[in-house]
Amino acid sequence: MAKLGNLIFGQSGGPTPVINQSLVGVVLEALKHDEIDGIYGMRHGVEGLMREDIIDLRKESIDNLELIARSPSSALGSCRLKPKEEDCEKIFEVCKKHNIHIFCYNGGNDTAETANILNNIARDRNYELRVFHIPKTIDNDLRETDHCPGWGSAAQYVARSFIGNTLDNRSLPGIKIDIVMGRHAGWLTAASVLARRHEGDGPHLIYVPEAPVSIDQMAEDIKKVYDTYGRCVVACSEGITNTDGEIMAKSLIKEVDSHGNVQLSGSGALGDLLVSEIKARLGGNLRVRTDTLGYNQRCFPGVISETDAQEARMVGKAAVKFSMMGNIDGSVIIDRLGGIDAEEYKTEAKLVELKKVAKFTKDLPKEYIIGNNDISDDFITYARPIVGELPPTGLLGNIKID
Amino acid sequence: MAKLGNLIFGQSGGPTPVINQSLVGVVLEALKHDEIDGIYGMRHGVEGLMREDIIDLRKESIDNLELIARSPSSALGSCRLKPKEEDCEKIFEVCKKHNIHIFCYNGGNDTAETANILNNIARDRNYELRVFHIPKTIDNDLRETDHCPGWGSAAQYVARSFIGNTLDNRSLPGIKIDIVMGRHAGWLTAASVLARRHEGDGPHLIYVPEAPVSIDQMAEDIKKVYDTYGRCVVACSEGITNTDGEIMAKSLIKEVDSHGNVQLSGSGALGDLLVSEIKARLGGNLRVRTDTLGYNQRCFPGVISETDAQEARMVGKAAVKFSMMGNIDGSVIIDRLGGIDAEEYKTEAKLVELKKVAKFTKDLPKEYIIGNNDISDDFITYARPIVGELPPTGLLGNIKID
Repeated sequence: MAKLGNLIFGQSGGPTPVINQSLVGVVLEALKHDEIDGIYGMRHGVEGLMREDIIDLRKESIDNLELIARSPSSALGSCRLKPKEEDCEKIFEVCKKHNIHIFCYNGGNDTAETANILNNIARDRNYELRVFHIPKTIDNDLRETDHCPGWGSAAQYVARSFIGNTLDNRSLPGIKIDIVMGRHAGWLTAASVLARRHEGDGPHLIYVPEAPVSIDQMAEDIKKVYDTYGRCVVACSEGITNTDGEIMAKSLIKEVDSHGNVQLSGSGALGDLLVSEIKARLGGNLRVRTDTLGYNQRCFPGVISETDAQEARMVGKAAVKFSMMGNIDGSVIIDRLGGIDAEEYKTEAKLVELKKVAKFTKDLPKEYIIGNNDISDDFITYARPIVGELPPTGLLGNIKID
Repeated sequence: MAKLGNLIFGQSGGPTPVINQSLVGVVLEALKHDEIDGIYGMRHGVEGLMREDIIDLRKESIDNLELIARSPSSALGSCRLKPKEEDCEKIFEVCKKHNIHIFCYNGGNDTAETANILNNIARDRNYELRVFHIPKTIDNDLRETDHCPGWGSAAQYVARSFIGNTLDNRSLPGIKIDIVMGRHAGWLTAASVLARRHEGDGPHLIYVPEAPVSIDQMAEDIKKVYDTYGRCVVACSEGITNTDGEIMAKSLIKEVDSHGNVQLSGSGALGDLLVSEIKARLGGNLRVRTDTLGYNQRCFPGVISETDAQEARMVGKAAVKFSMMGNIDGSVIIDRLGGIDAEEYKTEAKLVELKKVAKFTKDLPKEYIIGNNDISDDFITYARPIVGELPPTGLLGNIKID
């Protein structure tokens, strides 16, 4: 069989708990095909590739690869670079120099865009480069695919956090506001709804960027829940917007910036400020607490969705399989073949044009949002098989003595 | 066999991931003894007891109890009340009214103190009340006991957080400061050391309240690590103290209070402010991020130490067994019978005087602290069997292509 040349794989953007399943999927599938010569990895994505920081993935043992598949965070290293046209020229030159003819890049919509630009350059130069975007993002905001590898596991972490926090809130009642990742899309925050299993369980209120809300409204919503249960758990996206369409964190931060130096990124500023605002409206003596779930959402080890892990491997393998079908390119997507119950749930990998996935994002659809503070059962149906089983918990019957 | 009367059990203070194991241990052991008539639970600790909010634990099915044993947070509800002498009089009256002769109270040193006061009242009144303090605290700061139920599981969560965060930090290098619970004692923060498994793994620096440090020193420490690895992961207790012996969060908050309303409790304020201070000293363009691990340390479901779960049940059962030995009282402790390896590790429950555990706390011993920014191997030896197995993770060999 004629040699096609070398394959290279890279990881881009924020890590996920299962991102290395795609890496291992690519390597294990590539090992099966004699057409593929070198199986390369770029260190820290295209940033590393431009300085020819390339490693030989054939030198890794299968045992170690399987261990890495179960390890969170990008084992090859990642980068945040959104390459410009001239960067893509450089990337193309390095590919040509190293006889790379299959290019697999794992990331979000910016990664798909990089793949798309590179693909156009190769085509213009008449150089056969089979370019594949392999999806991943805990934000779940890529177009075309039913869902994104990485989201199911991050959602598993978020749902568990709310299972624990709602039990904590029953134990020591008060108001608890937890901030969930997702700057623009509410998919991850919406997953908090999976924590509800008993009457009175939180999250009682769920705020996503797609449904603007004022702090006054939020305070009113919280008061209503608190008056009913004597406690309230709130899931709040870091990207929630106020009724002027402005990101709330931004307006709040502005206020703080004029006084001090508190920052938003990766910190508790939004939560702290919501606590202040809610206390100012509902009373300073109320027990109001906040947590920002933070990086653990994308890198906590040992807490994953097995479905998500399998699918992350599937899309990696699929990219290599597609690359063997001819001089084609594209973005791998997950197609849902139906199945509401976890037992019937079935997906397969398909290929769509890169430009269909590049640049743009996919918001949480309006039909998954109830009012501006809750998530629908249709979302639960969509999410449950992807997120997987959650640990069971119980409540006491609380039967009074005679 | 002569009836002794009723037993009551209650939970106090912050929850732990395994606190309900002690509840279930008490109930299952009490069910074995015909001397015990009612098996009661107080809702929300002594606060509920004073208003006679008492439930019948015999009405709970064993299946549901076993489910609750695996559920984090205090199933009976908790309280923060440190009862005054007159409250203890009221508690005593309720016990007498309901023919309660065995009183088991699960909590930290304040809980032991409540038990101690109540015990003295009952003795003065010539009323037979067998009073037991059952230990629990994720802070691990109780005297007499080798370690506290709840700590091992919280430490498992903390160690996993740092395993994930150090991988994340390798993937997208920078400085990451994670704030760990523990207002006065560094036990939980110290457990972050268990995350180190490969050369270059974080946490590279560990700051505990017992070893004061200035922010200037901290910045210097961080710079040194950053210059070596190009990245740095810091574990920092929420209770770290500056070289004047002042809690650092307090001094930092004061600074913010004069401008705005940012609070410390349960929030990201300390982390945010450390980020600002470090950037101010090392350069504003550095990628410095922070997370405050938050309530998930004490209530994340499904991530526990099995040893911790077993011991939490053991101390519950032990309290009831001791109560059957005569008119005695005390605080149950865990005695470590030796065993460095997990296989040899063995503990048993013993009873000590309530007053030996009441009021006071136990700091992280000096011999476990290296300089003022690291934790010793002796601590690892102490902690490993209690915290249990951590999920394995791997790194690529990163062998360059020819």
